[in-house]
Amino acid sequence: MSKTNAGRFFEDYAVGQVIDHAVPRTVSGGERALYHALYPARHALYSSDAFAQASGLPKSPMDDLIAFHTVFGKTVPDVSLNAVANLGYAEGRFLKPVYEGDTLRSRSEVIGVKENSNGKTGVVYVRTQGLNQNDEVVMEYVRWVMVRKRDVTAPAPDAVVPDLKKVLAVEDLVIPEGLDFTNYDFTLAGEEHRWADYEVGEKIDHVDGVTIEEAEHMLATRLWQNTAKVHFDATFREDGKRLIYGGHVISMARALSFNGLANAQMIAGINGGAHANPCFAGDTVKCWTEVLDKAETSAPGVGALRLRLVATKGGEPFNLKGENGKYLSEVLLDLDYWVLIPC
Amino acid sequence: MSKTNAGRFFEDYAVGQVIDHAVPRTVSGGERALYHALYPARHALYSSDAFAQASGLPKSPMDDLIAFHTVFGKTVPDVSLNAVANLGYAEGRFLKPVYEGDTLRSRSEVIGVKENSNGKTGVVYVRTQGLNQNDEVVMEYVRWVMVRKRDVTAPAPDAVVPDLKKVLAVEDLVIPEGLDFTNYDFTLAGEEHRWADYEVGEKIDHVDGVTIEEAEHMLATRLWQNTAKVHFDATFREDGKRLIYGGHVISMARALSFNGLANAQMIAGINGGAHANPCFAGDTVKCWTEVLDKAETSAPGVGALRLRLVATKGGEPFNLKGENGKYLSEVLLDLDYWVLIPC
Amino acid sequence: MSKTNAGRFFEDYAVGQVIDHAVPRTVSGGERALYHALYPARHALYSSDAFAQASGLPKSPMDDLIAFHTVFGKTVPDVSLNAVANLGYAEGRFLKPVYEGDTLRSRSEVIGVKENSNGKTGVVYVRTQGLNQNDEVVMEYVRWVMVRKRDVTAPAPDAVVPDLKKVLAVEDLVIPEGLDFTNYDFTLAGEEHRWADYEVGEKIDHVDGVTIEEAEHMLATRLWQNTAKVHFDATFREDGKRLIYGGHVISMARALSFNGLANAQMIAGINGGAHANPCFAGDTVKCWTEVLDKAETSAPGVGALRLRLVATKGGEPFNLKGENGKYLSEVLLDLDYWVLIPC
Repeated sequence: MSKTNAGRFFEDYAVGQVIDHAVPRTVSGGERALYHALYPARHALYSSDAFAQASGLPKSPMDDLIAFHTVFGKTVPDVSLNAVANLGYAEGRFLKPVYEGDTLRSRSEVIGVKENSNGKTGVVYVRTQGLNQNDEVVMEYVRWVMVRKRDVTAPAPDAVVPDLKKVLAVEDLVIPEGLDFTNYDFTLAGEEHRWADYEVGEKIDHVDGVTIEEAEHMLATRLWQNTAKVHFDATFREDGKRLIYGGHVISMARALSFNGLANAQMIAGINGGAHANPCFAGDTVKCWTEVLDKAETSAPGVGALRLRLVATKGGEPFNLKGENGKYLSEVLLDLDYWVLIPC
Repeated sequence: MSKTNAGRFFEDYAVGQVIDHAVPRTVSGGERALYHALYPARHALYSSDAFAQASGLPKSPMDDLIAFHTVFGKTVPDVSLNAVANLGYAEGRFLKPVYEGDTLRSRSEVIGVKENSNGKTGVVYVRTQGLNQNDEVVMEYVRWVMVRKRDVTAPAPDAVVPDLKKVLAVEDLVIPEGLDFTNYDFTLAGEEHRWADYEVGEKIDHVDGVTIEEAEHMLATRLWQNTAKVHFDATFREDGKRLIYGGHVISMARALSFNGLANAQMIAGINGGAHANPCFAGDTVKCWTEVLDKAETSAPGVGALRLRLVATKGGEPFNLKGENGKYLSEVLLDLDYWVLIPC
Repeated sequence: MSKTNAGRFFEDYAVGQVIDHAVPRTVSGGERALYHALYPARHALYSSDAFAQASGLPKSPMDDLIAFHTVFGKTVPDVSLNAVANLGYAEGRFLKPVYEGDTLRSRSEVIGVKENSNGKTGVVYVRTQGLNQNDEVVMEYVRWVMVRKRDVTAPAPDAVVPDLKKVLAVEDLVIPEGLDFTNYDFTLAGEEHRWADYEVGEKIDHVDGVTIEEAEHMLATRLWQNTAKVHFDATFREDGKRLIYGGHVISMARALSFNGLANAQMIAGINGGAHANPCFAGDTVKCWTEVLDKAETSAPGVGALRLRLVATKGGEPFNLKGENGKYLSEVLLDLDYWVLIPC
């Protein structure tokens, strides 16, 4: 019998099942520095202890997406090893900042299964939580993937499709305890634009671009202990290309969006996201943002913006879908998320 | 007079000589995070403080091979700058876990010299110890290399060939103080296979592969302050290739072997090892393991496995040598080592 | 109106102006480990807490150039986004070692402006200071750049050209409090050559070379939050090449100069520097040093050397300029700096 992990197939999932994922991880200043070397990340709250303390936090937390990637990476061996496609995200919430020394682990509950009409694959919905060493939930999100069946003759389970929020309400967002932007230093943060300066419908071309290297996306993906072989083994795909982890594009785009959204400090929620086309080494990633909504929050000086962040590999900014309603071939990512920004 | 290090030649070594190597190094969470970015390392004991504490250690130690590479790297300017070949390892033992904040240095004793019959080179045997800031030996190993003579007319020294153990006995292994696997969490560790599940003679194909990049092996090799120019300077070899540090392949293979040996947490001993063929950027490294021996230990819940770890760059798993008794051209590494694993 | 940073043009600078640069940064063991992975840095004082403590410092500081790059990177969006050329450095001084946990920010004062006779560009001189969380100046330097005018019809300002020291006197250098090399361990440091062994006029070929990779220079440049797009976006220049941040070459050359200058522990001053030719991935960087001056200092056991460090991408060592007085095409860097070294 093989001792290696063959991954789960569609039949192995049942609604209500809880999966505790391996391997817990303690994060340190090392992960933080690597994140800043891999992405042009510059949000001041995640760069400076002094800035974070002036904003009411004990010190500078890990970038929110470090928490996301770490939690996500652990789910791969159990959720997406045999996945044909990553179909979507919903109800992502950042519940507690993660700091140096925290140990993160992941737990998923299967909340939906639905066999496809071809009988060869099915869709699995999981709600994943990231927990710290005190069993506090630091973030959570729902993800659904298309998974192969082991045995195409196996009977289809009763279809359960969870009722997911298309968009989180601002009341659903959790604002870190103590967060206070009333004494926010816009000069140190890098831009003057505050919550009041953004209008619904406004679009921002973030201008900067980064050409992707194999070594960099592999360093990043391994750092989150995501070991899906398609990202690392150039002999795995017939075309000899290594597919870049979608999260690498998310982090690259979020970091590039600093130029125009330097004050969009914290990611509070992820409403949805699509990896529209694959990204490969040699692609030059750029991005643009559309402001989808604005809301006030109960925290002092803190407003919320709902943003669409679109990453591309070529083409002009602000193009998203073709006449057929499908994503244009140059679109890599379409992410719908909430940020916290000084009013 | 040149001020740069010309390295030692065969005549410069004498049995009994002790060499204190430069440069001491304090390791931190940065080295740890880089190790996890460079290799798909996931052994839970080296990933999570909480997991390590549940196993009786004060916190998560540095991966054992961080200690090995750091200690090894320091010896390069004194031992292998003029080496023609790295011939072998023996009697490698990990004596004390290394933690963040420890400062490591290396010391070698020459334990053998033997001129080759061609009169141009000789073999030098050194026993190297890694010491921490409290002068405790954290690891040791014997290594022998073929070194050029400065002057081919120099007389041959009396040949001394040390009597080295082909294989360490389980009693030779040092188990970290306090290590206790009786409450081991197999779910968090990632696999269910325990000591009892492995049989002598069993072979495991670890399945996963990583295609090697120039940037990654150079980052790794520099991190250990191993500055042998053959790894960095593409103009040094006639073929324009940079030879990859053999230790990069060791770490890559060890990390890839997680898939099937997730519970083989600690490396306790290295019986021997051969870098069978050179590795270059673009090679895709895979590996397989053969279980060579099993033994009980005195520590609660802790068993030992003696494993052969073979790294390849192509070909089918489980092939090692040809009919002529020589390593096949696709074999990169043949490592014989002891691990500690829950019973 | 675009929300992205368009950068400053020549008309936007006026003598006396003070610019507080974004984004403050807390440095940790992560930056330190990355620096040692990116460059073959081995100076013992920056590698070992124990060695630093034996030299009178509380622990091992960050490599001096980590401070320089961090401070420099912050100035890019305000000083050099629209720069046509980086013209020079002067009066660089390292005033206080930087340690893990320190938070650095940058402030520049405009000390000179001079429009060029073509009316399209002008030269801007800034004195930049790096400050820590206690508002102490940790380093400072003067830099001058050629910047485009926004409007070529704008009137020229009164020309102000600061009077800068061609070379810092040894009395201008600031020696870290407590530094004492009287018990210096030359064995652990890696070489025997002390201050007395270097002669004015002596030249050292540092022998070693490193072939540059795209992934590595981008990791480095991002780590310092220098996001000038010319370093990252392969579609930005017409030739499809990414220009390597000049500081990457400085750090590579300084680290390579260990071989022959292992005891030149601390950089105390930068008298001047020229990025003679651009560096691109694939270039193999080597370097040589000329001893320009020697001086005693007031600190116990501590001498000072003034060095010229020249980085090249090919050619023979010790060649610098052609008959026309211009840098040879293989010269990348010509740096004039002061180091502290045991007597």
